[in-house]
Amino acid sequence: MENNTVATSFIQRFKDIRNHSVEICSPLEIEDYVVQPVVDVSPPKWHLGHTTWFFETFILVPNYPSYTIFDPQYNFVFNSYYETIGARVIRTDRGNLSRPSVADIYRYRKYVDEMMIEFMNSSLFNAEIEPLLELGLNHEQQHQELLLTDIKFILGHNPLFPVYKKENKESETVEAPKFLHFSEGIYEIGFQGSGFCFDNELGRHKVYLNDFEISDQVVSNREYLEFMEAGGYEDFRHWHADGWNWVNLHQKKSPLYWHLIDGKWMYFTLNGLQQVDPDQALSHISFYEASAYASWKGMRLPTEQEWEVASPHFKWGQRWEWTNSAYLPYPGFKKEPGAVGEYNGKFMVNQMVLRGASEATPKGHSRNTYRNFFQAELQWQFSGIRLVK
Amino acid sequence: MENNTVATSFIQRFKDIRNHSVEICSPLEIEDYVVQPVVDVSPPKWHLGHTTWFFETFILVPNYPSYTIFDPQYNFVFNSYYETIGARVIRTDRGNLSRPSVADIYRYRKYVDEMMIEFMNSSLFNAEIEPLLELGLNHEQQHQELLLTDIKFILGHNPLFPVYKKENKESETVEAPKFLHFSEGIYEIGFQGSGFCFDNELGRHKVYLNDFEISDQVVSNREYLEFMEAGGYEDFRHWHADGWNWVNLHQKKSPLYWHLIDGKWMYFTLNGLQQVDPDQALSHISFYEASAYASWKGMRLPTEQEWEVASPHFKWGQRWEWTNSAYLPYPGFKKEPGAVGEYNGKFMVNQMVLRGASEATPKGHSRNTYRNFFQAELQWQFSGIRLVK
Amino acid sequence: MENNTVATSFIQRFKDIRNHSVEICSPLEIEDYVVQPVVDVSPPKWHLGHTTWFFETFILVPNYPSYTIFDPQYNFVFNSYYETIGARVIRTDRGNLSRPSVADIYRYRKYVDEMMIEFMNSSLFNAEIEPLLELGLNHEQQHQELLLTDIKFILGHNPLFPVYKKENKESETVEAPKFLHFSEGIYEIGFQGSGFCFDNELGRHKVYLNDFEISDQVVSNREYLEFMEAGGYEDFRHWHADGWNWVNLHQKKSPLYWHLIDGKWMYFTLNGLQQVDPDQALSHISFYEASAYASWKGMRLPTEQEWEVASPHFKWGQRWEWTNSAYLPYPGFKKEPGAVGEYNGKFMVNQMVLRGASEATPKGHSRNTYRNFFQAELQWQFSGIRLVK
Amino acid sequence: MENNTVATSFIQRFKDIRNHSVEICSPLEIEDYVVQPVVDVSPPKWHLGHTTWFFETFILVPNYPSYTIFDPQYNFVFNSYYETIGARVIRTDRGNLSRPSVADIYRYRKYVDEMMIEFMNSSLFNAEIEPLLELGLNHEQQHQELLLTDIKFILGHNPLFPVYKKENKESETVEAPKFLHFSEGIYEIGFQGSGFCFDNELGRHKVYLNDFEISDQVVSNREYLEFMEAGGYEDFRHWHADGWNWVNLHQKKSPLYWHLIDGKWMYFTLNGLQQVDPDQALSHISFYEASAYASWKGMRLPTEQEWEVASPHFKWGQRWEWTNSAYLPYPGFKKEPGAVGEYNGKFMVNQMVLRGASEATPKGHSRNTYRNFFQAELQWQFSGIRLVK
Repeated sequence: MENNTVATSFIQRFKDIRNHSVEICSPLEIEDYVVQPVVDVSPPKWHLGHTTWFFETFILVPNYPSYTIFDPQYNFVFNSYYETIGARVIRTDRGNLSRPSVADIYRYRKYVDEMMIEFMNSSLFNAEIEPLLELGLNHEQQHQELLLTDIKFILGHNPLFPVYKKENKESETVEAPKFLHFSEGIYEIGFQGSGFCFDNELGRHKVYLNDFEISDQVVSNREYLEFMEAGGYEDFRHWHADGWNWVNLHQKKSPLYWHLIDGKWMYFTLNGLQQVDPDQALSHISFYEASAYASWKGMRLPTEQEWEVASPHFKWGQRWEWTNSAYLPYPGFKKEPGAVGEYNGKFMVNQMVLRGASEATPKGHSRNTYRNFFQAELQWQFSGIRLVK
Repeated sequence: MENNTVATSFIQRFKDIRNHSVEICSPLEIEDYVVQPVVDVSPPKWHLGHTTWFFETFILVPNYPSYTIFDPQYNFVFNSYYETIGARVIRTDRGNLSRPSVADIYRYRKYVDEMMIEFMNSSLFNAEIEPLLELGLNHEQQHQELLLTDIKFILGHNPLFPVYKKENKESETVEAPKFLHFSEGIYEIGFQGSGFCFDNELGRHKVYLNDFEISDQVVSNREYLEFMEAGGYEDFRHWHADGWNWVNLHQKKSPLYWHLIDGKWMYFTLNGLQQVDPDQALSHISFYEASAYASWKGMRLPTEQEWEVASPHFKWGQRWEWTNSAYLPYPGFKKEPGAVGEYNGKFMVNQMVLRGASEATPKGHSRNTYRNFFQAELQWQFSGIRLVK
Repeated sequence: MENNTVATSFIQRFKDIRNHSVEICSPLEIEDYVVQPVVDVSPPKWHLGHTTWFFETFILVPNYPSYTIFDPQYNFVFNSYYETIGARVIRTDRGNLSRPSVADIYRYRKYVDEMMIEFMNSSLFNAEIEPLLELGLNHEQQHQELLLTDIKFILGHNPLFPVYKKENKESETVEAPKFLHFSEGIYEIGFQGSGFCFDNELGRHKVYLNDFEISDQVVSNREYLEFMEAGGYEDFRHWHADGWNWVNLHQKKSPLYWHLIDGKWMYFTLNGLQQVDPDQALSHISFYEASAYASWKGMRLPTEQEWEVASPHFKWGQRWEWTNSAYLPYPGFKKEPGAVGEYNGKFMVNQMVLRGASEATPKGHSRNTYRNFFQAELQWQFSGIRLVK
Repeated sequence: MENNTVATSFIQRFKDIRNHSVEICSPLEIEDYVVQPVVDVSPPKWHLGHTTWFFETFILVPNYPSYTIFDPQYNFVFNSYYETIGARVIRTDRGNLSRPSVADIYRYRKYVDEMMIEFMNSSLFNAEIEPLLELGLNHEQQHQELLLTDIKFILGHNPLFPVYKKENKESETVEAPKFLHFSEGIYEIGFQGSGFCFDNELGRHKVYLNDFEISDQVVSNREYLEFMEAGGYEDFRHWHADGWNWVNLHQKKSPLYWHLIDGKWMYFTLNGLQQVDPDQALSHISFYEASAYASWKGMRLPTEQEWEVASPHFKWGQRWEWTNSAYLPYPGFKKEPGAVGEYNGKFMVNQMVLRGASEATPKGHSRNTYRNFFQAELQWQFSGIRLVK
């Protein structure tokens, strides 16, 4: 058996993190757990099952001989992109599955949680397993953020605009921006230290940056409204060709969740529909919109290297900030062997990096080396803009 | 006030029919009410709301001044194709709506039911309203059948193959067919009598039929398996051009719900997965399959006129039987004015007529003049084949 | 050898009909022979090759032993829907084939024509082959009509609006309509006589018709403009559900080839762009539009039986007239064995019947028993409306 | 007037380059100029018109007052992505336009060429116009490469596999690879010097590179066949998630133009169908395939920075070599004002950089700072692989 203190600390964190997922879902009706309005949004019950399946599949099955699989069919249902593990339900279909029921999934969670604690208390739990356990906990936290963004999408696309939770405070105020100057030279990028990080942050390495000035604030709704009112969505000159196609194909006129009602811009929040607050940080925009806005301002988005270098000098964490960096491997990046190796590397094409964090990011899950990434057209994250000139 | 006996009889039928919809749903989990796996299948909770909305919108609102609308937003959610009444949620979106919740919808049903009974007991209920009430009851019965076919589709496309209800007996045995002969001449077609019928059955009229011989049995699984084993799905000569495209596009090899598992044909029923019973009536085939099978047998499908003329002489009601008649208006067909006029007429193109009924058809809801209709490619009804030569 | 006179007469007709296809194409640029703007429109060079392939495949190869196939690859390219004969190029791909060149195809035509004449002059040509030859000639005439409609589509969708041929007079004037009355009773329908007809016209049979009154004129542009100006394209009440979806999906506002330019309705004809002539017969409408117009007038379209019975009493041939009859087999219809059997029967689903003929129909190719058929949404034929009340 | 020698030199280059486009097309049939099999491939006649339109629109119209536009409609037809200039024909539609005819377009070229020479001989031609003229010439050369790749696609997707040109030698032999070592440190990247370059190459800047070893050869067919035979297309572990979807959706099993015929891998070349030569450089692969191959070899693709730094030390120019760099702006990149500013910048998302050149690249049009870019799934360029470890 491992050092008791270590195990105890893991058990407590395990309990806290697992419990937080359940708390996030507590305001939901059963029906809210089930639907999948678009392919990028997963049903909340799927998130609850999938994170549980991760612990079952990668920790209990290979390491705890006395463990009995809860239901062998669940691998088929709750596997996501881990092709190594078996046939998967394609993402589009997740919204068609009424079973396992929400109650079944909570039973599944309880069962796996008890077995995990039993395992962590046992002599079989050792230092070799820690990194995988750490990965499982961080994986669960990633899905906690997705739970919130997906719940917002589900409720925000219902014509009744249901309220998720009265007390949730969705955004924060932005101040007048100041630009911070950084000088040309060699900088270091990438995770270092002893805590957890994902494989895509590893390989601390030198980069050569030119002079740049970066805003100490993210863009506010007021600033973005100026772009909208100046005809930003109608002027192709500010847009990438793909972005312009996206605007036209989907008739985009505003960020996601904005509705022009009786001449006023309203905004769907987890508290329900509210008037757009001009002082708050802009949210729910695509990379295309971020980039077009920057072009209209005569500025640009930071690279992820610039962002990481500058981040200790400004406040961050209000929004996931689109960078102008494509999601690519760091020098020396290697996939882990086995199914866990599919975690990040396979997505390193056709996606843009976001840095920072958001109000939906669980506490303790943000770092200035964290590399989030999404397709350029996606708006459903709490995503915003920081300018560079 | 109307004659008491008439009102009492209506009230009892109203209660019985409304209650039957609830009974159909009683074995479901909440989650099963929500999903919409394909556009033709509606979530059960939508059926429950929509049928309620029909009574609210077409009977209570225009005729019962003391009625207060339950929730003005529900018109948007539960309207179906009645373009006259207002903007509708497109069918594809029904599966994205987690709210109103199932509990909300049951409250809505209870409220409308109580108001309907209050109204039927009042002096405002009169003979002029009866046809619309009758239509509402028959409309609810149509949706009871759809509830069952949609529930079967939802459960039958879940990898866990959940059982709906142990006691449901899904099909019936077919005997060796005999062919009944009918002579050339003038026959009469269409509804007559004093009971209810849909507008598309009206206009009793003469048709001239040639000699024909029609089977007294629908086709069995055993007979259809012979077609499959003879390579019926691989031989374009038996198929319509559209049917052949459908077979190839969707890689069709068998009726819906059939699965070849370990060399045995299994069949998903409301009782769960079972081995295909060769003696039972074939079910869940498209018009294309029905027609290809008939062509392979060197026979054909009946026209709806032949079917109606012959039907008093054979047992029917096991399956909805595809005819080779397109769904078109009878001589003298007129749409009703107003939204109710959209009920049937607007579908009179690109659909084929089915005659008969099925195990999913509510008691008292079948007539030999009833004209059911679906697109040629749909398989999710309890549909079968009767041959003519 | 066959009776000389019969052979001579066939040879002359063969030459005349084959030559007419070439004449139709004579005003084209090489480039016009190649393109396929939409899947329903074939490149002119494909029509020229396909009709030639028909004679080669169904007459020369099986009946004339000394015949050598021009190019064995052409079967792959010029086969259309005759699945029996071999793998086909799917229709969508026809517009991607730059080879065989137009010159190659004219060489192919010349070669097959010479061999056909040699064969018809030989002792091997006999009465048994006549029906197939007749079918080949009528097949070529069908494609002559399609050549014209497809050429119009190709030129009419080019932003330069090229003129096909100055002298072509595209339409004819319509007079004030009178309604002709027909009495209820038994009528006979279907081809009789000794000349050629297609298999789908055979099986002369009795039908029972109710009283009807039918217009002696097709609808004029003036009449249809009234419908447009009355908001016909914006009022769902007149449309089938499928038609309404079609209007909205494609933003339909007028017949095909109509353009509102500087406040005037212009119309692309084979003579180029011209102002819409209100006195001419309406053309290029879908079944959905025909049906919506009739509904707006408070009338309806005729059935094909009504049309055929009444046709000797009115002028027809200006437009292909949409009927409200689906394309279905006549009583006793049987597919011919072999590939020729695929000619008509396989299309007997999801299409509506048109009766009459148009200015694009070759002389000698029209009969009042002729059953033309297209999908309800197609507009590219010279199609019009005749009303019944 | 400009210095005579400069003008004379420009006029000669203009004539040579313009003439080379015509030479590329000289083996074509008229029909080959017209078709557009897929959206990424433009009809050859469009390339000929578009490059001419560029000189007319950006040089003659703004700078040569005596110039009369050849045909005002051509702007609509031959504009490509220059949204500033007016409505464009969407790319998909280019293959539907039979007019202007090929002869018309050659007349257009002749007219514009004569006017350009007149202009360059005139006193109005001056040093300010030179950069735009240079851009026009390089633009024409880019389209010369596309002409060849598009002609290959058109002929290579015709079931008759027509030969383009006997004498064209499509590929070159690859030798046994050696790996060249480069040491960690600061390097410089980007164009410098006095000749022409595109805006995306500008901004010579420092980058910090880690140690790397790069092959002096591109991958051969023999090497890629080993990957294919080892099941490379069936093993998801080597593929990006998007790449794996691409493989499955399109059932990819080999590079483009490879056909397994009677057990032998054949390859369509501009000389027609030939057996795959194992010693030749692999061609016509997507980024996904390049990346999967590298992963299977336990190596990786170079970044564009590594490639540029190493390129003076190896032979390049046989293939466009996929790098693992996304197409993004260099530090300090600025769009030019006006329509020319749309040239490159708007494509800087969702594309990967290729470095090198190919047999299809015109002489004098390659540089080791040239940044080519395409979407990750495209195969129709002469694209290959260079490995890094």
